[in-house]
Amino acid sequence: MAFTFLKRTRYFHTISPAGIALQSRIDKRSYAARSSVLERVVSAFRAVTGDDGVSLGATVREQHGKDESVHSCRPPDVVVWPQSVEEVSALAKICHHHRLPIIPFGTGTGLEGGVGAMKGGVCFSLRKMDHVLDLHQEDFDVTVEPGVTRKALNSYLRDTGLWFPVDPGADASLCGMAATSASGTNAVRYGTMRENVLNLEVVLADGTIFHTAGRGRRPRKTSAGYNLTNLFVGSEGTLGILTKATLRLYGIPEAVVSAVCSFPTIQAAVDSTVQILQAGIPIARIEFLDDVMIDACNRYNALSYPVAPTLFLEFHGSERSLEEQVTITEDITRENGGSDFSWARDVETRERLWKARHDAWYAALALRPGCKAYATDVCVPISRLPQILVETKEDLTKNCLTGPIAGHVGDGNFHCLMVLDPNDPHEEQRVHQFTDRLARRALALDGTCTGEHGVGLGKRLLLREEVGPLAMEVMQGLKATLDPKNLMNPGKVL
Amino acid sequence: MAFTFLKRTRYFHTISPAGIALQSRIDKRSYAARSSVLERVVSAFRAVTGDDGVSLGATVREQHGKDESVHSCRPPDVVVWPQSVEEVSALAKICHHHRLPIIPFGTGTGLEGGVGAMKGGVCFSLRKMDHVLDLHQEDFDVTVEPGVTRKALNSYLRDTGLWFPVDPGADASLCGMAATSASGTNAVRYGTMRENVLNLEVVLADGTIFHTAGRGRRPRKTSAGYNLTNLFVGSEGTLGILTKATLRLYGIPEAVVSAVCSFPTIQAAVDSTVQILQAGIPIARIEFLDDVMIDACNRYNALSYPVAPTLFLEFHGSERSLEEQVTITEDITRENGGSDFSWARDVETRERLWKARHDAWYAALALRPGCKAYATDVCVPISRLPQILVETKEDLTKNCLTGPIAGHVGDGNFHCLMVLDPNDPHEEQRVHQFTDRLARRALALDGTCTGEHGVGLGKRLLLREEVGPLAMEVMQGLKATLDPKNLMNPGKVL
Repeated sequence: MAFTFLKRTRYFHTISPAGIALQSRIDKRSYAARSSVLERVVSAFRAVTGDDGVSLGATVREQHGKDESVHSCRPPDVVVWPQSVEEVSALAKICHHHRLPIIPFGTGTGLEGGVGAMKGGVCFSLRKMDHVLDLHQEDFDVTVEPGVTRKALNSYLRDTGLWFPVDPGADASLCGMAATSASGTNAVRYGTMRENVLNLEVVLADGTIFHTAGRGRRPRKTSAGYNLTNLFVGSEGTLGILTKATLRLYGIPEAVVSAVCSFPTIQAAVDSTVQILQAGIPIARIEFLDDVMIDACNRYNALSYPVAPTLFLEFHGSERSLEEQVTITEDITRENGGSDFSWARDVETRERLWKARHDAWYAALALRPGCKAYATDVCVPISRLPQILVETKEDLTKNCLTGPIAGHVGDGNFHCLMVLDPNDPHEEQRVHQFTDRLARRALALDGTCTGEHGVGLGKRLLLREEVGPLAMEVMQGLKATLDPKNLMNPGKVL
Repeated sequence: MAFTFLKRTRYFHTISPAGIALQSRIDKRSYAARSSVLERVVSAFRAVTGDDGVSLGATVREQHGKDESVHSCRPPDVVVWPQSVEEVSALAKICHHHRLPIIPFGTGTGLEGGVGAMKGGVCFSLRKMDHVLDLHQEDFDVTVEPGVTRKALNSYLRDTGLWFPVDPGADASLCGMAATSASGTNAVRYGTMRENVLNLEVVLADGTIFHTAGRGRRPRKTSAGYNLTNLFVGSEGTLGILTKATLRLYGIPEAVVSAVCSFPTIQAAVDSTVQILQAGIPIARIEFLDDVMIDACNRYNALSYPVAPTLFLEFHGSERSLEEQVTITEDITRENGGSDFSWARDVETRERLWKARHDAWYAALALRPGCKAYATDVCVPISRLPQILVETKEDLTKNCLTGPIAGHVGDGNFHCLMVLDPNDPHEEQRVHQFTDRLARRALALDGTCTGEHGVGLGKRLLLREEVGPLAMEVMQGLKATLDPKNLMNPGKVL
């Protein structure tokens, strides 16, 4: 009894006032009645996960109410840590019965506010479900639980000769990456999560467990029924909780060569990119950094790259094929006025060479100590890149904003790493207006408001502009079908 | 007036008795009342498309009630030929108002009975919408109307240095290929329709027109909202009519080399395939033909390939990279007991070499003159291929069935080209039972009942076994949301 009392005490302490305040948005009953509901819910959660699997602590809730974006923290009322799909399903059923929002949580490395508990509710942290299951080396596939991160999988695969190449930078969970349709530097060669997820285990808001391509199925291709896998890839937790992902793997390339090359103009860098792709070079990475970004990287890492539009390139293949890839690429860049290649073969030199690109985020932050950073994310057809990059740089200058540019230029995808003073609401407002203008510029050039970060909280209006009201209605219809009570990550995407 | 009378006469003549019989399934009213409805509908159609755009002719209807499968002809009541998306929408609205089924029709080259008018209704032939629109060479994309076929697009692209590589064999319409999630020989390198459609214009059953990724959008990647594009790819006309597709294009490879190699066992051929993929060879095609298929090809084309499990290979790349690809591949096949390569560089020799593979269908048919053929279609993880191929060949022998095997072995996808006597119902029954056993064998090995032909009519029960009742419920929910009156190609997929 004493134990129960303690739990109750902790409970009332920790959910008040934030928890109760949030909860009140979905529950208009009296304080006592609401408290009683929450108490019953938490007891039910504990019966599923054990005491360790539930937390009402303010700090824990705060940690789970925010990702790496500038969106403010919206803590959930409760955080739960299920350890199996059956526990996820049982917890979802409790939420469903009480109409409590469910917010899936991977590593919190998202960039569009996808984990904020906009209507309170229950954060499902999937961190404890972290097993790599069913590796099939000969078939180049593996199944992972939702707590397995990209780096953890690649560590696991180290001695197999295989790897999973999708690399958004952060060490995100693979199911989280599926949820946001993540991609990153290697997408130009290996595709995004859309192309690399073969099957998903999903728990719907009502606790139903199903497999998008059927339990245990992992053919390389299929025409069997609607493509449910790719409906859930990119659904940002708004349709269901991803509890397993079956992924494509690739052979680790025999050799890797990296190169850096600077250009007189943005146009010359983009022209080179188009010509490299046209020549059929199976380039693994082709990253663009603008002059401001290179300057920041030079300062941060004490490097001395020319302060000019720059391409960072990486080639994967056999020793012999790399030689040819590099030669043709160098010819192309030289014809476009590019500098001689700085290039690197061994791991150490390659890492030094790419350090500028890898540290871009921190280099940007170091431009203005004490500031925070926010990465925009648009994607346009490659031919439109010079126009949008030039206009965007003019916009930044005109509005006195700090936003060095880095991009996965082979896909037409780029980011402005906005550095802003967290204590200056005017600057925040100007950044917000700038990012909206940037997104609309991308839309005007046949592009998208998000190439890889997702819609989350911040781009819901832009999504409507992008796809139009009728496609929005279709999306809303799908959402209503799969989550009629609007419990799955409410307030996101749509 | 005479003209109207003539039209009426033709109308009553041609829809009776088949048309009326079919129509009666969805309309229980009296003959006179039904005729009157049909008459009004046809007048409304003519007002949209002109007289040329509507046909009630028995022959025309029969031509549109059947694909290349063994499923019997189920002619629609009417065939319409819209010439623009606005006409498609206007015709759909009429159908919607009168609750008439809508069956989209491309080239009729499907293999699972997808175009049969199971409940009568209106066939939308999209043949007259055959323009290639908006080619963007620098961005490697193009938009096509639904009547544009694969070969027509590649002819159009001839002088651009670009091509569209997805090749299911038949000269299918590209939107039809999108509708069935088609793939074929090049998928191992270039992916299937799932990976190569960037955007679709869709008309829903109620006439709503929308674009799955937003009007005119064509970024290489996007995370903006639910992936509606890939919900419609593979939907087999059951969710909406595809009226435009934006497709990825690829640079035509500098050089192409083909090779043929025979093996002592199926296992040796499959092991070679796995090792070629593991070695990172970017093989463009890797096709398996079993001994029976090779024997048939030898007879049909007066060739003299060893009657043994055989791989047909194709390499795309630069001259120099091809040399390396071929050398490594030859090493791998030799280590697995493969014969020396027969290989070919110039177009003519290559075509001669591949003729055996290209004519496989006709070679199979020639095994039993006067018979018809039916291609099964399953896909399993590659490591499971030897087991399923051996078991399937034993099954064929035991049941005295003719079914030479050809497969896209790099994807784990293969077909038995069943040759059967159209006048022998017992044999037809045995073939049916065999194909069910084959599909269940694929399911037992983590595979799918269809790798590229789709579910259509024949595999609906198998789909349920493959994905399970809960995923089926999700699919049915999506269907009900987008097509609540069940007018879009009813009786297919679900």
